[in-house]
Amino acid sequence: MQIDTVEFFYAAMPEVTLEADGSQDALLVRVVSDDGHVGWGECEASPLTSIAAYVTPRSHGVCQPVSASVVGQAIDTPDDIRRIASEVRRRSMDLLQAAHTWSGIEIALWDLLGRRREEPVWRLLGYETSHPKVPYASMLLGSTPQETLERARAAREDGYRAVKVGWGAFGASVASDADHVAAAREGLGDDGELLLDAGQIWVDDVEAASERLEALARARVTWLEEPFVADAYSAYAALAARTPSVALAGGEGAHTASMATNVIDYGAVDYVQVDTARIGGIGPAADVAAHAVMRGVVYVNHTFTSHLALSASLQPYAGLADHRLCEYPVHPRPVALAVTREHLARDGNGEVRAPDAPGLGVDVDLAALDPYLRTVEILIDGVSLFRSPAATGNLG
Amino acid sequence: MQIDTVEFFYAAMPEVTLEADGSQDALLVRVVSDDGHVGWGECEASPLTSIAAYVTPRSHGVCQPVSASVVGQAIDTPDDIRRIASEVRRRSMDLLQAAHTWSGIEIALWDLLGRRREEPVWRLLGYETSHPKVPYASMLLGSTPQETLERARAAREDGYRAVKVGWGAFGASVASDADHVAAAREGLGDDGELLLDAGQIWVDDVEAASERLEALARARVTWLEEPFVADAYSAYAALAARTPSVALAGGEGAHTASMATNVIDYGAVDYVQVDTARIGGIGPAADVAAHAVMRGVVYVNHTFTSHLALSASLQPYAGLADHRLCEYPVHPRPVALAVTREHLARDGNGEVRAPDAPGLGVDVDLAALDPYLRTVEILIDGVSLFRSPAATGNLG
Repeated sequence: MQIDTVEFFYAAMPEVTLEADGSQDALLVRVVSDDGHVGWGECEASPLTSIAAYVTPRSHGVCQPVSASVVGQAIDTPDDIRRIASEVRRRSMDLLQAAHTWSGIEIALWDLLGRRREEPVWRLLGYETSHPKVPYASMLLGSTPQETLERARAAREDGYRAVKVGWGAFGASVASDADHVAAAREGLGDDGELLLDAGQIWVDDVEAASERLEALARARVTWLEEPFVADAYSAYAALAARTPSVALAGGEGAHTASMATNVIDYGAVDYVQVDTARIGGIGPAADVAAHAVMRGVVYVNHTFTSHLALSASLQPYAGLADHRLCEYPVHPRPVALAVTREHLARDGNGEVRAPDAPGLGVDVDLAALDPYLRTVEILIDGVSLFRSPAATGNLG
Repeated sequence: MQIDTVEFFYAAMPEVTLEADGSQDALLVRVVSDDGHVGWGECEASPLTSIAAYVTPRSHGVCQPVSASVVGQAIDTPDDIRRIASEVRRRSMDLLQAAHTWSGIEIALWDLLGRRREEPVWRLLGYETSHPKVPYASMLLGSTPQETLERARAAREDGYRAVKVGWGAFGASVASDADHVAAAREGLGDDGELLLDAGQIWVDDVEAASERLEALARARVTWLEEPFVADAYSAYAALAARTPSVALAGGEGAHTASMATNVIDYGAVDYVQVDTARIGGIGPAADVAAHAVMRGVVYVNHTFTSHLALSASLQPYAGLADHRLCEYPVHPRPVALAVTREHLARDGNGEVRAPDAPGLGVDVDLAALDPYLRTVEILIDGVSLFRSPAATGNLG
């Protein structure tokens, strides 16, 4: 079969705030094959910019729009997805946003292939089992330590055994950071797993990050995530050498597989976090998972949006029993929940897993999304290059 | 003074071909301050996608449009440019295309500041002299070795002492590559400097690249450029260890300063090539130049478009006398030549240098560009987010 159409749906909350909460909008991709099979994906990316990267006029031979490598391509096996990915890499080499746009399409192609074969994506990747993961409740730091404590306690009472806090006020001062971290530990209780996300706040300042290590060790923090910008590998490695007890985590900003494996090989992280919807999709994410296994590093998904993106983020390491943690969006905005009919709920053990169902195992609910859909139109010299499809009368 | 307006002008040839020739379109940026000073910059990037990254609605606190960090900002000193750059990095952390959009704005801010102070940008960077550079004629490989020979010979007859060939047929086979390289050497003559650009053709395949080393050494090639994708550092380092005579070059794909310094520190290149109009502008490019000096690596500009972009690409290493080579677009398309009134012509020694004139030292000629300008319009829910400004009635 061939790729017949690729459509983009941009959904957003009526008001998008300045919180570091990625669930406030979504860019969904629907791919339809010439024999009528449908797959859905999601880009964890700026919707308008990612659409532009799909439809933009070409600038030259290696700055072509993503569309140039997609429509009309044969799509019968996972190898076809990898072949198209390498064409996108080549033809859109100088189009920076291409990786984010392609990620959503790539995910949709896996979904489409899985549905057609009636197999879950993780089985197409060669895994025999979808192992349960311990979801960590990912939340923003409170505005005061007391609020942080209450948030962590609420997550614990809600059954989460692991909690991640960060962003917001984090980084304000050594003392304030220590208070927040201690409060999070108190709220979570002694036996919970506590993770900390610094949100790149120290850029590449190893000293500033080092000053926090003692408080993190005291609160028995499992990992310190993204102390620095994504590619400051030497800063990561220098901090890793100074911290015997707190592990480092990073990688969510990677938009190529190499960027994530470089965080392992040069940045010396112990946990590599991959956002399937940014790195180029499920294929490169699975490559990073294989590299992590080889290097004795733990793979973790990064996701903060819909359960479509969550399912896609679980596939690349679904079969890795020893890679136990999973990021789980605890309080997504209504638009993110409206994306899918099914949700990946926690089971009786409080665990989640990639669904044992064809494709990604979730169905997109365009009718529920309709109130959130935004209409994008792009014209050049008065000619329409893109206009958002209507939600009604759809196939999927 | 403050940044008052930021405007984007998209110019393109009537027909854009699939050649790897980046001079077929241009995205120009005009920044005007509240006291009427003007600066011009250029993004080496997909025009529509880069405009979208400027105007897109925000997705969340660290996926804001580039515009959120620019208009209304104070701009009195180079430190202001760096401050705004760090705000862009923070607020647009998850907007991949932001680096390319910001690059053109950053360049325009340096131009504006230089014009206001009546100083060339290289002097604002702390350099006392703008040293002459040896331009290398950058050209695509011929379709046959004979054509490659003739192109190299023509460049030599035109006075170029250095020639770079690549792309096109390069990579087809070991034998064909050897023929092209030998032909280029023959056309250039014994004493010319020959450079080879592989255009990432081997992705990360060290063996495939290694098979070409003997022919390159025989033709006394100074550098082999981009054998692999931009961030395949371990492949670069592995190839570097195998090639005692042919140096490696890379870095043009860097969209952060760290990406370029990582190519030096982990990829073991001997030449780092920086595209000012992609890496975030002149500031981060100058940081990479300083790092190159510290590591004993040679800095070279990457540019293939207008003389505005050429001037911007020369500023970061204008004062480094020992870093002698410079990429020089030999046969740019008419649209690229139309961008500026002045052109950086070779002097009596066949050398070029960053102009000793305020700002970037070239003036944008909107009237000449007018036939090439394209009108972009972007609407969301029927509301216009962007419409290209008219070329007439302009300030600059």
